[in-house]
Parts: sequence; C-alpha cells; structure tokens
Amino acid sequence: MRRSILVCAHLDTRARQLIQATLPASAVQFTERDQPSATDQAAFADAAIIFRNLPLRYLPLCPRLKWMQLESVGFEYYNSLAVTPPGFVISNLKGMFEWPAAETALAGLLALGRGLPRLLAAQAEARWIELEVRPDTWLLRGQRALVLGAGSIGRRMRLLLEAFECEVQVFARQNPLATLHTPEELLAAVPHCDLLVCCLPKTPETIGLVGRALLEAMPAKGVFVNIGRGAVVDETALVDVLQRKRIRGAVIDVTAVEPLPPGHALWRCPNTVVTQHTGGGYNEELLDKARCFLKNYQRFSRGETVLNAVDLRQGY
Amino acid sequence: MRRSILVCAHLDTRARQLIQATLPASAVQFTERDQPSATDQAAFADAAIIFRNLPLRYLPLCPRLKWMQLESVGFEYYNSLAVTPPGFVISNLKGMFEWPAAETALAGLLALGRGLPRLLAAQAEARWIELEVRPDTWLLRGQRALVLGAGSIGRRMRLLLEAFECEVQVFARQNPLATLHTPEELLAAVPHCDLLVCCLPKTPETIGLVGRALLEAMPAKGVFVNIGRGAVVDETALVDVLQRKRIRGAVIDVTAVEPLPPGHALWRCPNTVVTQHTGGGYNEELLDKARCFLKNYQRFSRGETVLNAVDLRQGY
Repeated sequence: MRRSILVCAHLDTRARQLIQATLPASAVQFTERDQPSATDQAAFADAAIIFRNLPLRYLPLCPRLKWMQLESVGFEYYNSLAVTPPGFVISNLKGMFEWPAAETALAGLLALGRGLPRLLAAQAEARWIELEVRPDTWLLRGQRALVLGAGSIGRRMRLLLEAFECEVQVFARQNPLATLHTPEELLAAVPHCDLLVCCLPKTPETIGLVGRALLEAMPAKGVFVNIGRGAVVDETALVDVLQRKRIRGAVIDVTAVEPLPPGHALWRCPNTVVTQHTGGGYNEELLDKARCFLKNYQRFSRGETVLNAVDLRQGY
Repeated sequence: MRRSILVCAHLDTRARQLIQATLPASAVQFTERDQPSATDQAAFADAAIIFRNLPLRYLPLCPRLKWMQLESVGFEYYNSLAVTPPGFVISNLKGMFEWPAAETALAGLLALGRGLPRLLAAQAEARWIELEVRPDTWLLRGQRALVLGAGSIGRRMRLLLEAFECEVQVFARQNPLATLHTPEELLAAVPHCDLLVCCLPKTPETIGLVGRALLEAMPAKGVFVNIGRGAVVDETALVDVLQRKRIRGAVIDVTAVEPLPPGHALWRCPNTVVTQHTGGGYNEELLDKARCFLKNYQRFSRGETVLNAVDLRQGY
C-alpha cells in the first residue's frame, strides 16, 4: 500500500504520538525534516498529503501532491508559485498564534509600564528599589492605541487593549474593521497615539511601512510594539528614536535578522524589551499544530475543502 | 484668620501646586510630614481638615478636627480608635489603586508565562535563547483563576482575567459577588484553580488565611499572586512550595516585612517575580491623590458627606 501521508513537520513526542494514534499506520510516513534521505525523497513520489512547509525544490518530486498543510501562518515563501496547480491546495495555521503573540505584546507593554526590567535586575541582587521605580510607572489603562493589521493577531490585540480601557484604532489596507487605510491616514494619526502595535506580515506593501517619518511622529510617551515581522520597520530609525529617548520605549519580538546578531544596537536600547521571536510559542504549540493537521485531514479525507487554504495571489 | 486646612500628605510639585491653586491661600497650611516642628504642631490646634494619615499620637492635639482624608486605601492603623467621635470622619482613597495593582498582577503573570525573566537576563548579554524559552512558555488565556477579595482590586482582576478568557471564581466572606465564602469552600476549590490571586487587606480574619494547606492544595501548574497584604500569607510555606517547584511560580508585590530583607529567601525563589510593593504606583499617583482630596473638600465645604468615609468597626 502506498504511504500517501508524509509528515515531516517539527513535532515533539506528544504531537507525533497523537498523529500515530489517529491516522492508519499503513498510510502515514514520518520522514527526516532537514536532510531527507534518498528513501525519504522517494516517498515524495507517493505523497498525496504533506504536513510541513516543504522547500520549493522538492515540490517537483511530488507529482501526486493534493494538499500541503503548512506549520506556519506565514506563507510568503510560496508566493513565487503565483498560482497553485488545479487540484493542489496549501493551507496554513491561521489564528494559531493569536493568543501567544498578543500575550507577548501585553507582557512587554505591562513590563515597561510596571518597571519590571529594573525590578527583575534589582531582584537578582536582593535590592529593594520601590521608591526609585514607583514614580516612573505608568498605566496601560486608557492609552490611545493604534494597531497595524486586522488579522487574527491584530483583532485580538484590539480586544485585549479595550479590556484595559484603551481607545483603539486599526490600520489595514482593505479590512472593513480598520478605520485607517492609507499610509497618509496612518501618518496623520500617529501623533495622537501612545501605543503603535505592529501585527503586519511581510508583504511587498508592508516592507519598510514603519519608517523614520512615522517613528519620529510618535508622541514622547509613545511605545512601539512589533509582533508582526521585522522587515516592516526601519530598524536604524527605531534604534535612533529609542537611543535618543525620543519615545518612551519598545517591545520587539521580531527583527529583520533573526537571531539578532550579538552586536546589534537593539539589544541595548533603553526601555526596550526584546522577546526574541518567542511570541508565537506556548507549551502546547506542537500538539496544537498536530491537532490542526488532523482536523483538516478529516475534512480532506471526506472530500470536503480544507480549512485556511491560502490564496497565493492575494498575500494577506 | 485661622488656617483650618492642614496638608502634610506626601506630594510632588504638581500635586502641591494643584492644591495651592484650588484652595484659598489664607486657609491652607503645609506642614512637615515626618518631623512636624513645634509651630507645625501648634497649627494642629486650628485644623478642621487634615490631609494625611496622621499618627495617632497627634490626634489629641487636634480638638477642632472634623475630617481626615487619608493618603491610602488601608486604614487598619486606625482600628484602635474603634469609633470616631461624633462629628469626626475619616475618608480613604478607595478605588485609587485598582488599576496599578491589577496591572502589576497581570504584568507578573504574563512575564512568567512569556518567559520574560529569562529573556531579559539574556538580553543584557545579547544572547538569543528563543528555542530554549519557547517550549516553556504558557498562555494566560483560559486558565482557571480564583480571586481572593471582592473589593475594587479584586473586581478589576476578575474583569481583566475574563478578557483573557479565564474562568474566574471569587472568594469573599460576605460580598454577594463572591461564589466562595468560607475557608472550607476555599480549600475545596483551590485544587481546581491554576491561578490564586490574593487581593485581600490585612484584617484579623485574613491574617494567615493563605496557609500551608492551601498552598499545598494548588495544582502543579498553579501560580500564586499577592497584590493584597503580606500578612495574609504563610511566607515560610510559600517559599517552601516555590523552592520545591511544587507550584509553577509566584508574583509577589507585598510581603510581611517591607522592604524585604536582603537575606530573605523570596528574593531567590525559582519562577518568582518580586515587584516590591510598586503595585499601587503610577506617575500621576500623587496628583490623583490631591485631586481626590480636593474633590472631597468641595463636598465637605458645601456641608455634604465626604466620599469613602471608612467604618472603623467593620474593617473592609
């Protein structure tokens, strides 16, 4: 019997066991992720289903491929395919990182507001600095926020900031949830926003969108947050406004180059929390990825359309 | 003319200027806070209004005192008065610390969930530890929470935790918002709660309420938060469950002894964030205290009852 389901996603033991317990053993094959052997590659020929972001160079080895379930939300890597062949669908994990990314943004914002970087450093030395920190603390409550992006992460950010009684505006090119749609409208709004929270993917339209003019237009109490993609921001300008204390601080989960090189100035900018692209993570992450794949497999195997099929022509 | 308004609260320049700009200069006197001079003490004799938590020993020097506006929410220090004389009222700042205290609790919880203590320590060394931290992160979303106390801080905690889709139960002796009312009901509920958030004041009934049995009953993924008062907790037992990693972690704003002595074990417990009683603070704190006093002064001067008069017989 052909092994028509190829799994080479990054999984832990629990996630792998869940797949093994759910799919027929005779149909599923686990292959090496980073250096597939010749045998693994031979298995590509039989695969109708692949669970992994397969490198483009292997796609021609998969003539029977009908469905590829990505392990990510981002799918810009496949944009060069322009269109998928008829009868071939790619689906992503849309929505899966909404909560961990939003919680990272909130953790960073509240850490800055409550002085946690100073308090944690003092804790390591058993040093009580209440009276030094207390007058510098500030409330998240009631801040004016501008969320860039109206995808699942942007929408969750908006709801959570509203729970802190923030006034929230949303910028997105086309999404009807947004009130700001053009870069000009965005630039006009930024001077009146205390928090600028970037939840944008990397697309030809978003690269460099948060440039020097935008960052310099922020108010003195402004805080910039990036849980989208590093390429959206002019990092040289960002480092500059932070070093000059032109704005109050930043929470940076994503950077243009990752890992961030040891000599990069962002590591040492004042009032900056660098969360090292942990924003999408949580302890059940790999298990939930397997669950998403299996749920979609049930649909696929019944001949239904899979959930979260991506449209390579549209980008986000 | 008698200077009938005595201000010796801890204020900054803005707060003091606001009071000076609002009250008649001929009626208000600012005195030394910690070591009032003989002249200052003589002024007590004329004071009808005092803005400050006046030490008990000075009260007999104030025969004309009609109203004391405290600079705090807590008023347990005055419980020994048992009752206030007829025509004398004490008011507190009820509700003023709701947001900063709740934001401190959320900051600590999210910091633990997102691995911020490790990330910030690594940031100081420009060290990228994404893959070490990411599998250990956990979501606040959907945790089962138990809030101790249904005052303004407890109520705000409940609302904010619900924004993170937590299931929240509330413990309070009498408050109708609570679903748990007795220590026995509390102990029975704790094994099913991931977050135990103490927002209780120090009263004869709350001292030691969070004892060893309660802490040992928490689930392995339990996190204990204290933004109430240190005396509510058996700190020896707390240190013990943290050191043994019997529970997942803790966020400790208040301790039995403050400042926490350098040798205290809480400073170095694993997965513990010590926020050093900064929970009530924010940059507009002193200005807002002056605003509360002035708002209440308007009521008092029109012969209306002041807001937030405390009842010394009831405690909280």
